[in-house]
Amino acid sequence: MKLKSSFWLAVATAATLLFAAAALAQTDPLPSWNEGAAKQAIVNFVQATTDRASAKFVPPEERIATFDQDGTLWVSHPMYTQVVYCLERVPKLVKARPELAKVEPFKTVLSGDREAIARLSTKNLLKILAVTLSGMSVDEFKAEAKKWLDSAKHPRWERPYTELTYVPMIELMKYLRANGYKTYIVTGGGQDFVRVYSEAIYGVPVEQVVGSAGGTTFGYDKNGRPFLMKDPKLLLNDNNAGKPEGIHLMIGRRPYAAFGNSTGDRQMLEYTKAGEGERLAMLVLHDDAKREYAYGPALGLPDTKVGAFTQALYDEATTHGWVVISMKNDWRRIFTFDE
Amino acid sequence: MKLKSSFWLAVATAATLLFAAAALAQTDPLPSWNEGAAKQAIVNFVQATTDRASAKFVPPEERIATFDQDGTLWVSHPMYTQVVYCLERVPKLVKARPELAKVEPFKTVLSGDREAIARLSTKNLLKILAVTLSGMSVDEFKAEAKKWLDSAKHPRWERPYTELTYVPMIELMKYLRANGYKTYIVTGGGQDFVRVYSEAIYGVPVEQVVGSAGGTTFGYDKNGRPFLMKDPKLLLNDNNAGKPEGIHLMIGRRPYAAFGNSTGDRQMLEYTKAGEGERLAMLVLHDDAKREYAYGPALGLPDTKVGAFTQALYDEATTHGWVVISMKNDWRRIFTFDE
Repeated sequence: MKLKSSFWLAVATAATLLFAAAALAQTDPLPSWNEGAAKQAIVNFVQATTDRASAKFVPPEERIATFDQDGTLWVSHPMYTQVVYCLERVPKLVKARPELAKVEPFKTVLSGDREAIARLSTKNLLKILAVTLSGMSVDEFKAEAKKWLDSAKHPRWERPYTELTYVPMIELMKYLRANGYKTYIVTGGGQDFVRVYSEAIYGVPVEQVVGSAGGTTFGYDKNGRPFLMKDPKLLLNDNNAGKPEGIHLMIGRRPYAAFGNSTGDRQMLEYTKAGEGERLAMLVLHDDAKREYAYGPALGLPDTKVGAFTQALYDEATTHGWVVISMKNDWRRIFTFDE
Repeated sequence: MKLKSSFWLAVATAATLLFAAAALAQTDPLPSWNEGAAKQAIVNFVQATTDRASAKFVPPEERIATFDQDGTLWVSHPMYTQVVYCLERVPKLVKARPELAKVEPFKTVLSGDREAIARLSTKNLLKILAVTLSGMSVDEFKAEAKKWLDSAKHPRWERPYTELTYVPMIELMKYLRANGYKTYIVTGGGQDFVRVYSEAIYGVPVEQVVGSAGGTTFGYDKNGRPFLMKDPKLLLNDNNAGKPEGIHLMIGRRPYAAFGNSTGDRQMLEYTKAGEGERLAMLVLHDDAKREYAYGPALGLPDTKVGAFTQALYDEATTHGWVVISMKNDWRRIFTFDE
């Protein structure tokens, strides 16, 4: 009898433990986040805004969350993925328009001199972007970008760029969606470029991608079939003040939660937090040199061209109650291939 | 026994009839449409594109339907509602900027001379629109437009403009949504104006309103609170070729179904029908002088400034397989107050 009773006790204990583990797994929607202020801020925000009994309750139709992409949802170092794409398109472009070979900045790009390319001015980079992202139909662009993304690899990890998304942020997007939030990408990158993969890697449909956008021109091909041609003219520069402006243009609602990682996201976070009721603003700090990168003046590290997290931004975060996410401390796991 | 058996027969018959009536009510999602080619085209389209066994099946995420607003979803005669709004705002505007009182076209508007106002050129009307729709924050604009819509009335029906929606089109939107379609408004009217009431009267959330849009400028008020100021500069003229361009910018997918009523919708319908698979393009023809209006050269009636349904448009509809909806013949009921 003694044996039998301890056997059943063991079974009961095991069952309890299993049940507790299952309950824990069920109740933790953010398993790749370490316990801490950042994770707690997210959970508190979701609970407060979705509880009908809470004064902070937000009606489902108003639940909008906006995410910067580069450096917030996926790796943006050492160079924005889309810039790599545009630079690698230059040879093809020059083949079609040989006169460009002798003209800057195309000449430098063709030289293959990495240091000289890295030194290109913003103005010259924008010129390359404008030319390589236009002059074709929106369907042709989509097909070309998709083909490139299927084969291009990040130099450090030697994996497709689309595998370099941050698991904790994907969990966060899913958690918000499970709680009735519409998740939008609000990127300084090209809207049409991000649309190519947003659904597949983030679960964000193309109509929920707000980005820098060139115009298009409606016309007819030689068979009389209507199509849209991509223009070099920029309609929306979805960076800095352009982010809240783009949010108003494309969404028409002020977000309740916004996520970024650099000075380009400052106005989006300010606009979000200026709304009434509970609002969440968070910034990803790249402080993990081992698993990803560590950069930015806020860490006393050198400034970078891309994704600058300045001291002023850090100070504003502190003043306004924005939550800084430390990649090193807040994220248990960064990439799917980390384990 | 005889009596009893006929009693049960009567009960059974009544039950059968009740059941049949209920089934009929359930299976007709478009009760305000008369039976005919237009209604049949809608039902056929929905059945073909939502049946997984059909070669014409469209995955749910791609199901986009776009609707012009003025003349397609609500009355646009004798003048676009938004133009009425802008004209009625002129006195208030002049109070704030008295120098405008002596300048055309504001002088004419202030004169109250209806015929002279009706003769204003498109250029002058656009000038009035640009000035009356800008120079305030997006929140102030929303509050002002809402206030006006709550009190303004259509001269013929003496009812709020928001009651002048077409019941058959609202049924159509609901039917499409019940079948997984996202319904968008794609209007030549002002995006911010339509957003004020789109959810309430059409069930279309603000983020699914594509319209002519001015830019905004992000800034800070005297208390340092961020806000968006409406600019007079037009970013998107969402008419004619601007409709497919706007659809690409704001939605990023080609619609499977598109609905309009005038030459301003031509390119949207062309773009929609040029897509692969089953596509539905429909045009509302205003041929019901008694219950609404009858106008347009396609009917041999005089042309109008607004909502022109030209003979060329009618011919193109015939050539391309667009379905023309006759308000007179296809709609059993037009307004909620018709019965």
